[in-house]
Amino acid sequence: MYLPYFFFFSLLLAAASNALVQDFCVADLSLPAGPAGYPCKKAASVTADDFAYHGLAAAGNTTNIISAAVTPAFDGQFPGVNGLGVSMARLDMAVGGVIPLHTHPAASEILVVIQGTICAGLVSSFDNVVYLKTLNKGDIMVFPQGLLHFQINSGKTPALAFVSFSGQNPGLQITDFALFKNDFPTELVAKTTFLDVAQIKKLKGVLGGTN
Amino acid sequence: MYLPYFFFFSLLLAAASNALVQDFCVADLSLPAGPAGYPCKKAASVTADDFAYHGLAAAGNTTNIISAAVTPAFDGQFPGVNGLGVSMARLDMAVGGVIPLHTHPAASEILVVIQGTICAGLVSSFDNVVYLKTLNKGDIMVFPQGLLHFQINSGKTPALAFVSFSGQNPGLQITDFALFKNDFPTELVAKTTFLDVAQIKKLKGVLGGTN
Amino acid sequence: MYLPYFFFFSLLLAAASNALVQDFCVADLSLPAGPAGYPCKKAASVTADDFAYHGLAAAGNTTNIISAAVTPAFDGQFPGVNGLGVSMARLDMAVGGVIPLHTHPAASEILVVIQGTICAGLVSSFDNVVYLKTLNKGDIMVFPQGLLHFQINSGKTPALAFVSFSGQNPGLQITDFALFKNDFPTELVAKTTFLDVAQIKKLKGVLGGTN
Amino acid sequence: MYLPYFFFFSLLLAAASNALVQDFCVADLSLPAGPAGYPCKKAASVTADDFAYHGLAAAGNTTNIISAAVTPAFDGQFPGVNGLGVSMARLDMAVGGVIPLHTHPAASEILVVIQGTICAGLVSSFDNVVYLKTLNKGDIMVFPQGLLHFQINSGKTPALAFVSFSGQNPGLQITDFALFKNDFPTELVAKTTFLDVAQIKKLKGVLGGTN
Amino acid sequence: MYLPYFFFFSLLLAAASNALVQDFCVADLSLPAGPAGYPCKKAASVTADDFAYHGLAAAGNTTNIISAAVTPAFDGQFPGVNGLGVSMARLDMAVGGVIPLHTHPAASEILVVIQGTICAGLVSSFDNVVYLKTLNKGDIMVFPQGLLHFQINSGKTPALAFVSFSGQNPGLQITDFALFKNDFPTELVAKTTFLDVAQIKKLKGVLGGTN
Amino acid sequence: MYLPYFFFFSLLLAAASNALVQDFCVADLSLPAGPAGYPCKKAASVTADDFAYHGLAAAGNTTNIISAAVTPAFDGQFPGVNGLGVSMARLDMAVGGVIPLHTHPAASEILVVIQGTICAGLVSSFDNVVYLKTLNKGDIMVFPQGLLHFQINSGKTPALAFVSFSGQNPGLQITDFALFKNDFPTELVAKTTFLDVAQIKKLKGVLGGTN
Repeated sequence: MYLPYFFFFSLLLAAASNALVQDFCVADLSLPAGPAGYPCKKAASVTADDFAYHGLAAAGNTTNIISAAVTPAFDGQFPGVNGLGVSMARLDMAVGGVIPLHTHPAASEILVVIQGTICAGLVSSFDNVVYLKTLNKGDIMVFPQGLLHFQINSGKTPALAFVSFSGQNPGLQITDFALFKNDFPTELVAKTTFLDVAQIKKLKGVLGGTN
Repeated sequence: MYLPYFFFFSLLLAAASNALVQDFCVADLSLPAGPAGYPCKKAASVTADDFAYHGLAAAGNTTNIISAAVTPAFDGQFPGVNGLGVSMARLDMAVGGVIPLHTHPAASEILVVIQGTICAGLVSSFDNVVYLKTLNKGDIMVFPQGLLHFQINSGKTPALAFVSFSGQNPGLQITDFALFKNDFPTELVAKTTFLDVAQIKKLKGVLGGTN
Repeated sequence: MYLPYFFFFSLLLAAASNALVQDFCVADLSLPAGPAGYPCKKAASVTADDFAYHGLAAAGNTTNIISAAVTPAFDGQFPGVNGLGVSMARLDMAVGGVIPLHTHPAASEILVVIQGTICAGLVSSFDNVVYLKTLNKGDIMVFPQGLLHFQINSGKTPALAFVSFSGQNPGLQITDFALFKNDFPTELVAKTTFLDVAQIKKLKGVLGGTN
Repeated sequence: MYLPYFFFFSLLLAAASNALVQDFCVADLSLPAGPAGYPCKKAASVTADDFAYHGLAAAGNTTNIISAAVTPAFDGQFPGVNGLGVSMARLDMAVGGVIPLHTHPAASEILVVIQGTICAGLVSSFDNVVYLKTLNKGDIMVFPQGLLHFQINSGKTPALAFVSFSGQNPGLQITDFALFKNDFPTELVAKTTFLDVAQIKKLKGVLGGTN
Repeated sequence: MYLPYFFFFSLLLAAASNALVQDFCVADLSLPAGPAGYPCKKAASVTADDFAYHGLAAAGNTTNIISAAVTPAFDGQFPGVNGLGVSMARLDMAVGGVIPLHTHPAASEILVVIQGTICAGLVSSFDNVVYLKTLNKGDIMVFPQGLLHFQINSGKTPALAFVSFSGQNPGLQITDFALFKNDFPTELVAKTTFLDVAQIKKLKGVLGGTN
Repeated sequence: MYLPYFFFFSLLLAAASNALVQDFCVADLSLPAGPAGYPCKKAASVTADDFAYHGLAAAGNTTNIISAAVTPAFDGQFPGVNGLGVSMARLDMAVGGVIPLHTHPAASEILVVIQGTICAGLVSSFDNVVYLKTLNKGDIMVFPQGLLHFQINSGKTPALAFVSFSGQNPGLQITDFALFKNDFPTELVAKTTFLDVAQIKKLKGVLGGTN
């Protein structure tokens, strides 16, 4: 009696047998990526582990001057997000901790406070308006793609937040690193930012920049 | 000496004065949406409050049979995400709680466990493989767009998770609601799902479906 | 007199000689796909046959319990659609035939009835509204991406339809297959669908599921 | 016993009550469209009729010199496709009928032959290769976005085909109409096509062009 | 003899008469924009003038401290680009002129030097690499979306360049303006950039910032 | 004192060490492209030269019958634009020069006149309206994706323009080449364009077409 099913199923299976599994596309990090992401692992070798990631479970080390740590789960760390338009990161901020002014060139961000109090801000490009909010546990905030923003632990206890992105690799451009943590010639930094040479040299000293 | 700046700035401002603030597009929910989202509020009336949302701070009420609650922060609740390709929701699951089998027709999802232990699963369309994971505090998991998935509190304490989406309105289609919580004629449900009529009628009774 | 043309044409040809043929991107199925599809065959080896497909010309075998067959022309079967955002399938439905409740996770669908009478329906995620239509020869219907829908031959003769999709690989997730045609543990199916265990076991028996 | 459900459901409904129905976006043709399509009809006024269209059921009138007719079901005719990335048209071709050389500026096309024999061709932009195929009943062919193509009834009986598109409004630019069925100055047509003035004037006469 | 054409043409015209002109979507700036741009002007009122813009023909006024001017032709100035994914701007740089460090949050940029010599640079987010090039007349350079970059007139004559963007409104976030030309509290600027308070106050003085 | 920085930086660097540089994706032309473009060069081997291109600095050779030349900087010539959604070309037009009627199947175009006077036009697909503009130095014009357009040097001096595109490989389909510069059978050209056979043969003779 169940035999006739065979025809229907086998037909579908035959059709599918050389079809692509486009339900998902777990990254094969061993191959070169393209503009849309990495090539997909073969479906047969995908397991449940490819869809989960344990790397955000532990707090980042905040024993540093900014008293904060960013732990990413982008495509490079979590290949399961490849092609899906989402990724995540964990923010740990000790008392007084700060995530310095930065942008994500390729994605918008949404943040949820899990613990502590965070003062966050973003600056519009249109008219340089600064939007500031103090966020408590359970509050969420959105940071539009490409705009400068920051987070500060403004409370008296450590703060924890998770941030999600509208892309598998949002990028992270910390303004200070872009200016002072490389060989960007001091003269050019001065010319394009109006900062004093002494100020530039001081921060290059701190961050390890040269030139 | 600073006067000459005036020319440069005023030029930019003049140019910008009738330009669109496309840095962001906070939804004006009073106007009809289009395929890409809602029309934007005027920039001048946007405030920091538009980028933050407090509605996920309180736990959802889990005093119900599924012992769980989903609290969304989609474009309808949180107009600041309009056009940004992200949104969020809060999952509260009492002991034994379950988010029934469902899909998000229009977005991929990434989940982070804040408290408790969650058993989550998804089913591929290609060959109906079930991918199951038990997730603890700090673990994350990704659910590809449109695929059936579920979450169960598999621990002995309440569980809390936040989920983010790759779109401002991911949709939420709970399979049981689609089948049994409406006027979907029992005969058609039976014909298209192979479920027994008695089973259908029983669940329609529970969920308030008719026909 | 025509000689001067040479310069103009040769210039263009020289420029083009190492350019990509992005007019189209016929899939090279021997290479791993990425999120946007398969790598392209070399332009020089593309022929007219790459743009056409004969596999939908024959009726699918409907001698099975559902009295229906789906024959796909997705990227895996018809490499010419790679990168073009379209694909197609053929639906054959004997008298009483049914395409069970399913979704396409990654595309919207448009259907045209070629022969017979088809009752089709879709369920919205927003408020679980069931939209039902009876379609005759020449009628078309659209099924939005990711939403549950079905087709039934509601006439007294065989029915034939062609469906097109807004993507090269729309996916096909038949709800019954996702639940009962795999090793999805019965206990979890019960917990996430509210179905009775007996019902689940019965359908697992029919469809070949285990656990 | 079923009372507790109330809390869960009411929570979801409350959340959804001011949310957008982005499952679909049936066009409100009375409002101005934007780059992504028309504003959406209110969900409450959407009916099953919005997802179906009867306008392709009747053959187009082929009593004309080209012995052919194109009947579109784009967003303007079939508002249900708005925002879904698909649309359709019907091609009727009497014996000797031809759909003249044309492009769809905004979509790729997939064609299925329902009746008769069609010779179809497309020209690549890269190296002007002409790809020609003779298609019989059930054969399908794909025409990449923006490329010149045509269809000819090459059989001895009327031909019928349905074409689908990767967009809600693919556009249709018939080369002859663009050149000869308007006020495109003859001198400019000659200069930009190398056609003889006499040829241009002849076809302008046939197609109603001026200047 | 030409009469039969009437049927074919009238059919197409009838079909098109209530269709949208999605060939283009000239912005109606009087209506609120959405995430994809502005609503379209009615086709009947579109003229050739809508596709052209004269505002970049005149040099910007470079009599200011940076000795440079940016003149945009974004959607707000040139409504014809609405929905087309392109826009343009003109850069005038007197001797010693500089376009300060900035990003375009929503688009990539391609620049062509028309006159003079320009030193341009961009900084990657990945590892803060500075890529520097000296460009002469006819040279082009590309700046990926969202990354910090700048242009300096490094020659001994005025420089002129045109820049194009991969979007209708790329945005322009000048780092100095975001920090010093608003009411961004000095304490927060210091905390999120490590700059000295004196430096911040000095530049706020120059640029008109407060707090 | 600066030591603690080490932890913060090393954390980020460790995280990034196996991450993709999606800031940009310079094309590796030695690998096959996909629908979204070419695979990316390794970040470590990218240099400033990858972001700049010198090939448009020299005028194209206009000593030909059309007295014009198009010099492209698409992904094939300028691998730095891969994945960035922009590209460029240079138009040189001697007195009387003309860029014949053509389309770009895959991108919109924006043109800026650098020297001379150009008469440009485009034809809408909707109702075959011809939009004509005479452009002088500094004027810009936009040509929507896929629509037929042309440029003519209508002045008394050579003309120079740069055009930018909303894609890395816009394609270029010159109508005359598609019809007459290949083996498109004369009979089919006649049937699908209504052109006289003599006219077709004449232009095939000029352009090197056969059949």
